[in-house]
Amino acid sequence: MKRKIRMGMVGGGPGAFIGSIHRIAAIMDGHIELVCGAFSSNPEKSADAGKELYLDPKRVYSTCHQMIEQELALAPDVRMDFVAIVTPNHLHFEPAKLALENGFHVVCDKPLALNLEEAIALEKVVNSTDKLFALTHTYSGYPMIKEAKYLISTGVIGKVKKVMVEYPQSWLAKPIEFTGHKQADWRTDPKKAGISCCMGDIGTHVWHLAEYVTGLKIEEVAADLSTFVEGRLLDDDGSVLLRFQGGAKGILTASQISTGEENNVRIKVYGEKAGLEWYQEECNTLRIKWLDKPLEIRRTGGIGASPFSNFNTRVPAGHPEGYLEAFANIYRNFAFTLQSILSNEAPKAEYLDFPTVSEGVRGMAFINAVVKSSKENAQWTKLEV
Amino acid sequence: MKRKIRMGMVGGGPGAFIGSIHRIAAIMDGHIELVCGAFSSNPEKSADAGKELYLDPKRVYSTCHQMIEQELALAPDVRMDFVAIVTPNHLHFEPAKLALENGFHVVCDKPLALNLEEAIALEKVVNSTDKLFALTHTYSGYPMIKEAKYLISTGVIGKVKKVMVEYPQSWLAKPIEFTGHKQADWRTDPKKAGISCCMGDIGTHVWHLAEYVTGLKIEEVAADLSTFVEGRLLDDDGSVLLRFQGGAKGILTASQISTGEENNVRIKVYGEKAGLEWYQEECNTLRIKWLDKPLEIRRTGGIGASPFSNFNTRVPAGHPEGYLEAFANIYRNFAFTLQSILSNEAPKAEYLDFPTVSEGVRGMAFINAVVKSSKENAQWTKLEV
Amino acid sequence: MKRKIRMGMVGGGPGAFIGSIHRIAAIMDGHIELVCGAFSSNPEKSADAGKELYLDPKRVYSTCHQMIEQELALAPDVRMDFVAIVTPNHLHFEPAKLALENGFHVVCDKPLALNLEEAIALEKVVNSTDKLFALTHTYSGYPMIKEAKYLISTGVIGKVKKVMVEYPQSWLAKPIEFTGHKQADWRTDPKKAGISCCMGDIGTHVWHLAEYVTGLKIEEVAADLSTFVEGRLLDDDGSVLLRFQGGAKGILTASQISTGEENNVRIKVYGEKAGLEWYQEECNTLRIKWLDKPLEIRRTGGIGASPFSNFNTRVPAGHPEGYLEAFANIYRNFAFTLQSILSNEAPKAEYLDFPTVSEGVRGMAFINAVVKSSKENAQWTKLEV
Amino acid sequence: MKRKIRMGMVGGGPGAFIGSIHRIAAIMDGHIELVCGAFSSNPEKSADAGKELYLDPKRVYSTCHQMIEQELALAPDVRMDFVAIVTPNHLHFEPAKLALENGFHVVCDKPLALNLEEAIALEKVVNSTDKLFALTHTYSGYPMIKEAKYLISTGVIGKVKKVMVEYPQSWLAKPIEFTGHKQADWRTDPKKAGISCCMGDIGTHVWHLAEYVTGLKIEEVAADLSTFVEGRLLDDDGSVLLRFQGGAKGILTASQISTGEENNVRIKVYGEKAGLEWYQEECNTLRIKWLDKPLEIRRTGGIGASPFSNFNTRVPAGHPEGYLEAFANIYRNFAFTLQSILSNEAPKAEYLDFPTVSEGVRGMAFINAVVKSSKENAQWTKLEV
Repeated sequence: MKRKIRMGMVGGGPGAFIGSIHRIAAIMDGHIELVCGAFSSNPEKSADAGKELYLDPKRVYSTCHQMIEQELALAPDVRMDFVAIVTPNHLHFEPAKLALENGFHVVCDKPLALNLEEAIALEKVVNSTDKLFALTHTYSGYPMIKEAKYLISTGVIGKVKKVMVEYPQSWLAKPIEFTGHKQADWRTDPKKAGISCCMGDIGTHVWHLAEYVTGLKIEEVAADLSTFVEGRLLDDDGSVLLRFQGGAKGILTASQISTGEENNVRIKVYGEKAGLEWYQEECNTLRIKWLDKPLEIRRTGGIGASPFSNFNTRVPAGHPEGYLEAFANIYRNFAFTLQSILSNEAPKAEYLDFPTVSEGVRGMAFINAVVKSSKENAQWTKLEV
Repeated sequence: MKRKIRMGMVGGGPGAFIGSIHRIAAIMDGHIELVCGAFSSNPEKSADAGKELYLDPKRVYSTCHQMIEQELALAPDVRMDFVAIVTPNHLHFEPAKLALENGFHVVCDKPLALNLEEAIALEKVVNSTDKLFALTHTYSGYPMIKEAKYLISTGVIGKVKKVMVEYPQSWLAKPIEFTGHKQADWRTDPKKAGISCCMGDIGTHVWHLAEYVTGLKIEEVAADLSTFVEGRLLDDDGSVLLRFQGGAKGILTASQISTGEENNVRIKVYGEKAGLEWYQEECNTLRIKWLDKPLEIRRTGGIGASPFSNFNTRVPAGHPEGYLEAFANIYRNFAFTLQSILSNEAPKAEYLDFPTVSEGVRGMAFINAVVKSSKENAQWTKLEV
Repeated sequence: MKRKIRMGMVGGGPGAFIGSIHRIAAIMDGHIELVCGAFSSNPEKSADAGKELYLDPKRVYSTCHQMIEQELALAPDVRMDFVAIVTPNHLHFEPAKLALENGFHVVCDKPLALNLEEAIALEKVVNSTDKLFALTHTYSGYPMIKEAKYLISTGVIGKVKKVMVEYPQSWLAKPIEFTGHKQADWRTDPKKAGISCCMGDIGTHVWHLAEYVTGLKIEEVAADLSTFVEGRLLDDDGSVLLRFQGGAKGILTASQISTGEENNVRIKVYGEKAGLEWYQEECNTLRIKWLDKPLEIRRTGGIGASPFSNFNTRVPAGHPEGYLEAFANIYRNFAFTLQSILSNEAPKAEYLDFPTVSEGVRGMAFINAVVKSSKENAQWTKLEV
Repeated sequence: MKRKIRMGMVGGGPGAFIGSIHRIAAIMDGHIELVCGAFSSNPEKSADAGKELYLDPKRVYSTCHQMIEQELALAPDVRMDFVAIVTPNHLHFEPAKLALENGFHVVCDKPLALNLEEAIALEKVVNSTDKLFALTHTYSGYPMIKEAKYLISTGVIGKVKKVMVEYPQSWLAKPIEFTGHKQADWRTDPKKAGISCCMGDIGTHVWHLAEYVTGLKIEEVAADLSTFVEGRLLDDDGSVLLRFQGGAKGILTASQISTGEENNVRIKVYGEKAGLEWYQEECNTLRIKWLDKPLEIRRTGGIGASPFSNFNTRVPAGHPEGYLEAFANIYRNFAFTLQSILSNEAPKAEYLDFPTVSEGVRGMAFINAVVKSSKENAQWTKLEV
């Protein structure tokens, strides 16, 4: 019989951004409950967070290690089922490994790890267990992104020729990492973020979107990364020429210094019969630009929307869904899959639609390739795992 | 000490639309948990719903009466705190009255009741208790609607001159109530919906939006209601001229036969110094049309957004929030208020920002006035309570 | 053999707004040339205007009377063919009558005349001659408005149920007529503008749009006109409930005090099978909102556009056409019709697609009806000619 | 004393696209008249065109050579003042040289010539005469593009960091050049178009936009050009990484196989204080994305618009201007400059705002650089003249 899935969280204490997003996304559909957490390495801060979240103080921990140990000591029908890891990049690998090796499933924020080596090592851990691993590439959770994927995978727009993705932000337009901005601090610190800031943090999002929507792998990249803010140690902007398997071409640009931009993630894909356009500001709209028919607008939950996108839709057409629902789709599909496994049932195909560790490894390879290409003056560089 | 608020639900079983919306909206922020419900008068259906929702079968009931009786028998720290009523209009009054009189707080779907008489009677019940009563006029929950209210209430756009609201839908464009559509069936049945379909169901939403945003009461209306679908017993379309206190004029139109429209609720308000425009399709955008400056765009959580709208915002600017978050703001503010009361604290002003029974009574008076005006050939009719 | 059509202009001297619009619209397609004009009753000002326009000084006049007299004295292959009247409303009737009675065709700005009586008298003059008379209801010149008309007239969207038109402006939000603003001065002066400012100036535009696009006549109106600016003698805002022949309902609103609005003329029409939406800000786009298919976007000159709209399109899809081209379509169709007549050929059907004196008379009747209805407290009033 | 400027045209006969655009753009403001033309090398076709254009048959020629000879034989106050060259690329150089050397001014379509050598030679001819030379980079004629240039040149958005331009089309998505499509035929033929199709035809447009708006020169490019249609001899798609003088980075993409795209030219520029966004589909709107203020929308002719853009605006805000008006701004500024020169006056600064032969030479250098870079596997290549 189906039961609620129990979540423990690592990270996401006071001052964090993504932790509360994960919590809302996880619980909104009612299939997951937060039962414990190690929200901060500072015991007091972790306790405060636990109190805010109405948790049993005994299940609020200071370290992932402690959490795993003590949760294991609880009865199986009380103990957490999975760990959600929402810490900075350098703190993904260890908790994930620890959780997996102790029999817990994992949901992890992206990018997967501090570097490709860690990522590959983690993939091996995942593959050596029978545990689930989900990576929260949020943008692939939008219903109209799934509609786009559906239209391409079913051949509706024909062979893909060109792909354009962009992710412009401006929150790092000023050197805020030098004035105590916690989020900026770790994202611009190579020890915590890895070899890239902009490409690691948001470039990977649109990299994933491009591969998820088209179903095509990027084979090589020619990149020009920049650091516009003086004194910054990592890139804060970059543009990348893309070559996909099968001959499609593309372009990817991500920027954290695009002044005044919020987060208007955008993807355009051109196939032989139609082009597709989606952008986050109108996230419930997918434009289908036919070669031989007038422009068609598909809408979340609207007329013509596929079962694939409708499965990831909560409200009738015209009532906008947003970022939190897209995020929640990853958690919900993960929970459905886990419930199936716990019931010894094969998960339905639509349940398995969430990013996993293998996307995480490719994401790290993408970061490596663009950084390498840029260092070599935009030389074409293979995206190899 | 703050604790989670416990919700019981009346209605919202299989085949219902708004029940699941209420549940997501209630729980997403983690301050409310669903603990029990009378989801259907059919015990089997109610049990099924309870199972889907992972509820303790002992707390799944067939009637509101039973739910209240048995919950009262539970320990105070287990018992539900409030009842969410998500049944058709004719089934609001009794459960609400019963809940209030037995010491439970209430969240009720709109319109408040089957008719004005019931509404006034219910208001008396509310006023005779110390219980909270929230009415889910969802659209007032959008951050940018709150921004608009803020700009008007603080005098930024000057004295309001003109107000335009519209709510176009097309789901009743065909006579679907005669072919077994459960939602359409009760909404077009005077015994269940009251004296109006279109104006009661969605006209009230934009009526509320007009009064909420401007802070002005509508004094009189001249209405022309229509029934375009043959055999239908109630209105499915209508337009209304509005006169507000203080001299502002306006127009309200609502339609369930506006072919191809999803739910593009729209409001425009023109003051002496600026006009404001918001529509649900771009719900995170508020246009400020200055008389003497270029057009300004405020965005949910974006630069310049007021503390009032930011209090009702969950994610950084550029990550779209939607209908569910707007709905959730009503529940969250209700929960915050209730937590304050339970802690013997005065609720903060921003917590009290949710529609109550008095808006419900005015809404019923609005329905009465437009139906009366339309019957009398669009004669100006007072909106009186 | 086809030849260029020769235009004389009455009005449009220094300080005028619409005169230069008419001139650009008339000449851009190369079928019409400006040969003479009485641009101002002040001879010096008229001469200045003529000089700016590179006209032969001998053909620059101070009065329409003088222009007609002296042009008649010229050889037929030199003499102007038609008079374009771009003066304030009270100066339409006399020049038009004079021109027609002396054998000249006429293009006249809207509204047709100072009042309904003049309009009817002018219609008689037109009907007693074989001269052409065009009225410049500009908005009906937009290709995508013609596409909408085409879709309705060919039954594509089915029987029309509801029509919504609006014309919001804000240029009269302040009492600028008292501070020497020439355009505002005459438009708010009953002696020059007639019984209405807002409804006469812009209400008639959307009235015409509603009837032109739907092909349906408005039968009765219930209007609430307002004067928001103190001391103003005529209406500056108004909303009107509409009843069309055949049962369609509608709403029309026009305003000159809608703060911050430029001229975002908008029309929505809902039929049994689809709804249509057009607004001037995206004038090359027509939204077709199907009941049973995804939203379709037709574009000026784009795939699927009808021959009827394409006939009124100059540039390939994606190169925006605008207001001047819409205006020019009226002049061009008028010129094509006139060329046909001069060549003793029957004008093609598509040439005859421009507003004439009969629309002008109905427009004046519309003004009369809304002013009467508003004075009688929004009583339903017939729109009769 | 100012007089009308007289234009002769080379090219633009039956079946041509851009000829009629040039004619409308040239005459709409009334400062230029078409007096003669060599519309086709086929005398009959040229005569037909001349007749359609109401020209004196004696001034309709078959070759540019003939036109120049015979016009020179006419009295100076009758003779054409300038030649508008609207032929395919390989037929720009000779007529332009001939016209200039015979004392005629020139307006020429872009790109300037068949190759860089011709371009440099033509520049020398221009520089050796005192004749005006305008190049019709249309998109720089839009008022809101000029507003963007103004905001950058006056330091309002601060130092430019990033520039993104794109020009997607789909008219060459199929191999239409092999089935008798005249426009496609010459544009894909290296003998007529030069070394590039897509980059030459539309890449140059956005190259020019990038340099015009920012006032910065592109120093080097890394390009990946593609030919997606089998059998095609030239590129039909390409993406280019850009490095500007002063350190700004950028990306340019142009495509003729972007299925379903009309011509949605787009530019985004990010400076230190604000970002700017413009796209042709909403050509009267410029978005100003401030770092520390809400988004601002400037509109053609609207509040806040600069004198520089207003000088290139014809109608009040809210009445859309379009592609033809943008095109006309180039002709009008050229005509004003020429009138000044003919009156022995110094042209005002705002008159001189049109592209000249030097932009033409840079455009050819841009084509050379991107083709070279792409051949060398996206190696960084200097854009040198």
